Amino acid sequence: MRSFSFFERFSKAFQDYPSLSRIIVVSTISGGGLIAYSEANGTNGVVETGIRKKKVVLLGTGWAGTSFLKNLNNSQYEVQVISPRNYFAFTPLLPSVTCGTVEARSVVEPIRNIGRKNVDTSYLEAECFKIDPASKKVFCRSKQGVSNGKKEFSVDYDYLVIATGAQSNTFNIPGVEENCHFLKEVEDAQGIRKTVIDSFEKASLPELSDEERKRILHFVVVGGGPTGVEFAAELHDFVTEDLVTLYPKAKDLVRITLLEAADHILTMFDKRITEFAEAKFNRDGIDVKLGSMVTKVNDKDISAKTKGGEVSTIPYGMIVWSTGIGTRPVIKDFMKQIGQGNRRALATDEWLRVEGCDNIYALGDCATINQRKVMEDVSAIFSKADKDNSGTLTLKEFQEAMDDICVRYPQVELYLKSKRMRGIADLLKAAEADDGSKKNIELKIEEFKSALSQVDSQVKFLPATAQVAAQQGTYLAKCFDRMEECEKNPEGPIRMRGEGRHRFRPFRYRHLGSFAPLGGEQTAAELPGDWVSIGHSSQWLWYSVYASKQVSWRTRVLVVSDWMRRFIFGRDSSSI
Amino acid sequence: MRSFSFFERFSKAFQDYPSLSRIIVVSTISGGGLIAYSEANGTNGVVETGIRKKKVVLLGTGWAGTSFLKNLNNSQYEVQVISPRNYFAFTPLLPSVTCGTVEARSVVEPIRNIGRKNVDTSYLEAECFKIDPASKKVFCRSKQGVSNGKKEFSVDYDYLVIATGAQSNTFNIPGVEENCHFLKEVEDAQGIRKTVIDSFEKASLPELSDEERKRILHFVVVGGGPTGVEFAAELHDFVTEDLVTLYPKAKDLVRITLLEAADHILTMFDKRITEFAEAKFNRDGIDVKLGSMVTKVNDKDISAKTKGGEVSTIPYGMIVWSTGIGTRPVIKDFMKQIGQGNRRALATDEWLRVEGCDNIYALGDCATINQRKVMEDVSAIFSKADKDNSGTLTLKEFQEAMDDICVRYPQVELYLKSKRMRGIADLLKAAEADDGSKKNIELKIEEFKSALSQVDSQVKFLPATAQVAAQQGTYLAKCFDRMEECEKNPEGPIRMRGEGRHRFRPFRYRHLGSFAPLGGEQTAAELPGDWVSIGHSSQWLWYSVYASKQVSWRTRVLVVSDWMRRFIFGRDSSSI
Repeated sequence: MRSFSFFERFSKAFQDYPSLSRIIVVSTISGGGLIAYSEANGTNGVVETGIRKKKVVLLGTGWAGTSFLKNLNNSQYEVQVISPRNYFAFTPLLPSVTCGTVEARSVVEPIRNIGRKNVDTSYLEAECFKIDPASKKVFCRSKQGVSNGKKEFSVDYDYLVIATGAQSNTFNIPGVEENCHFLKEVEDAQGIRKTVIDSFEKASLPELSDEERKRILHFVVVGGGPTGVEFAAELHDFVTEDLVTLYPKAKDLVRITLLEAADHILTMFDKRITEFAEAKFNRDGIDVKLGSMVTKVNDKDISAKTKGGEVSTIPYGMIVWSTGIGTRPVIKDFMKQIGQGNRRALATDEWLRVEGCDNIYALGDCATINQRKVMEDVSAIFSKADKDNSGTLTLKEFQEAMDDICVRYPQVELYLKSKRMRGIADLLKAAEADDGSKKNIELKIEEFKSALSQVDSQVKFLPATAQVAAQQGTYLAKCFDRMEECEKNPEGPIRMRGEGRHRFRPFRYRHLGSFAPLGGEQTAAELPGDWVSIGHSSQWLWYSVYASKQVSWRTRVLVVSDWMRRFIFGRDSSSI
Repeated sequence: MRSFSFFERFSKAFQDYPSLSRIIVVSTISGGGLIAYSEANGTNGVVETGIRKKKVVLLGTGWAGTSFLKNLNNSQYEVQVISPRNYFAFTPLLPSVTCGTVEARSVVEPIRNIGRKNVDTSYLEAECFKIDPASKKVFCRSKQGVSNGKKEFSVDYDYLVIATGAQSNTFNIPGVEENCHFLKEVEDAQGIRKTVIDSFEKASLPELSDEERKRILHFVVVGGGPTGVEFAAELHDFVTEDLVTLYPKAKDLVRITLLEAADHILTMFDKRITEFAEAKFNRDGIDVKLGSMVTKVNDKDISAKTKGGEVSTIPYGMIVWSTGIGTRPVIKDFMKQIGQGNRRALATDEWLRVEGCDNIYALGDCATINQRKVMEDVSAIFSKADKDNSGTLTLKEFQEAMDDICVRYPQVELYLKSKRMRGIADLLKAAEADDGSKKNIELKIEEFKSALSQVDSQVKFLPATAQVAAQQGTYLAKCFDRMEECEKNPEGPIRMRGEGRHRFRPFRYRHLGSFAPLGGEQTAAELPGDWVSIGHSSQWLWYSVYASKQVSWRTRVLVVSDWMRRFIFGRDSSSI
């Protein structure tokens, strides 16, 4: 217990003097971390006042689930977390783990350490394989036998929060599953690290032809997204900074190839970043093959087709497959049950509620928000705004309704921004101009429809990133916290197709920027407001942000000390 | 390359100001570490002068092999290291790794980082499975296919240094191999750590009876030696300091049992230490069952027989088997070839040369030194000492020969010490007293034999410890360094059965003390001169010694920061 109280004192010091936290990393963007030890109090879900607690079952301990758990702060709930991983992993650092820049254990935090003291939380190490919304049950399987070899059990819920994430997508290309490494879990990163070292050891064995050695030391990365690019860059640094001193003969044999089906890498970033990354990889000797679609993988070679239809087969030693995400079987099965069978991810409304289900929420990579179109509701919107039921809308009436419309349909705001309009008057003017008439103060429904006809083009799907998942988790936790309060005093926008107001404002994503580390202590950063920065200064920004975003003080200290260790001693190449 | 030069500067700072090293750990007993990067220079074993380098094949990267490699400092040799592990592991910290007090990666150092720059060293990741002394070849197998699925190859040697260590001994008890964890390799420690966490997760699953939960959380340690005792203590600390806060329900269910076949634990230590350890374990609630001989292990229970013959069967969740060491198959096979088939370990002479072989050396746990008995050589000793060939020995003649005798037969010195004799005169007096006669200045051969008849009782086998292996490695490296020089100017004792002197002084073990950590920041230390210390101060001595004994600055910094991390944040319980 001594160590625990020591920690508490330590933690308190940082809370009392928040500026301390900024000493550790040059500057932190978001302050401190939170750890609270969950202690099951054995009340079996009944609070002392006699009211039964609502049982929230949370599936998954990734970004979305952990962020939900960390922010939920209402003792009315009893949370049952179910996940095959008893820890949260800081996945943006996984590419660093593959080469030992950061240790695997530095990026994980036991899920039992996360969550507030006043929320009764427990955890089960199991995988949910079936969701039954009718009986409000989830069916789970433990990888360890529970009793008498039985491995399955069911758990009841009042609210279900699905945050199981996604899995790697092989696009059903033959041989990928068997021969490629993925990079989604901590174990994947550890496996890649071991395989890289094994490859160097293997290439050092006697009785091998030079051709064979070259094959063994040919590392192929499939997918030019941020993960694939960062892994290729990390591997290049690991080889040139650390491994060539230990394996001097490997220097001229090792080769890294990046295969990307599109015409450029990092297509989700600004063009300047893409160009810089391609040029840097070119200088570094990383062979970027654009427009290469993988068609088949064997145990020793990989076949890719160019856009011209040419198929080339290249021998490889190791492949890392990082092309995007696919749906987990449990989610596929659940989608079939609720009539969403033809989708890639669970459809939710803007409040993260799974469409067609009661008390089931989905967030993170396993879900997408189905943003309601303005044109679907346009008649309802018109009649809500037309308070005096005159059949026409005055500018004043429209302006009064606009706040609610913008909250409910964020595409309206985006449309105004994208057209550089200052407000609703401009929107109307634009529509009127089309009409040819001028200074029309009363608006008929057709004119109203015409003014809004283009706004739905601005509906955007959110990317499958940690940032989105974490914001969704926080949002949902805040909703849960104030469920009762907002039932009485709803704070959302007016219901267009019903009476009263929505309980909560819909989820709104705030993009804080994204990074693409490119190796050699250089990082590309794209920040809000089209601000692009590339180079060593962005690398320091990256260090600061990633250190500050750690889920606990323990992982923060470990990650920073890993970076320092790497600067001083380099990366370790022991094959463990 | 930047990181490398940074390290060099860092390392230099410590060499220039050796007192700095003492800042890191309160006090260090042995100073600095050594890292030199081996760079194969591609001369294929031919030095520039045209003389062919002697090829030394070193099998094993444990304590003995690493210490040999680290100390060898003669560019005449070309060293080929062969081992299935491409790293050296600081094994005394393995019990700490089992519970995450220290991380696995903090106790390993790549073997390619060890060894001096001027010695041409290369490494092969393979396991030797056959030694052929006739053709001077070793046959090796790589766990990875070399070429066309072929996994075997052979390597020639001029000198062979066998330091393959030993394996865990199951005493052929049924079920041990299949159901128990061993604790010899880093992977074993990692496996134990994962199993401990898995057990706690498993016991938290629903639909289990309390009896079943108790079984899952019953940890059994077999073997009351230093490793078993330290593991039991570490596990107890891990459970009480860290796990019970995260798994509050497990508190009353978890149980640790230590089974020991002898009448006491830590029998190799002073009685005071044994008593203290048994009392402390008793207070801690660790169930120590003495005189319990394991007879059978099933997948869920373990059977043990007491000395009275009573057999009891107890259910368990996890067993760690730490009862002693057995012979590796390759050594068994080699012993058969050279006529040592009925032994437990390779017999060497006092210069670590394998008996009956040319240019083959063995050290560490795979070998034992066959100390020559005085009584075997007694006639030769007498005639060597009798310089004037008078048939009798004067006290002066005896005293002159005594230095060589004591070096060649260390048991003589031990005998004198154990009988509290000051010198040879006392020895003779004692013999004379038995004889009944007094003041006999001339000694006949029978009297000489009688005086020395008891000394061979003092021949001691060295324990299979890291300390012995490391000293042997250093000794052998020094011998190799001065092979030519000592050929010309031998510095060993007089050859009793031949002409001239031995090239080197025989290996002599210097016991520097041993530790037995007992948990709760308490350690028992037994230091030379029968000095016994138990408690918190010894724990700090333990920290200092173990930090100072690290093979590199990297592991030293990592181990110390792991200890600090544990003090502040406790141990991590993520199941990775």
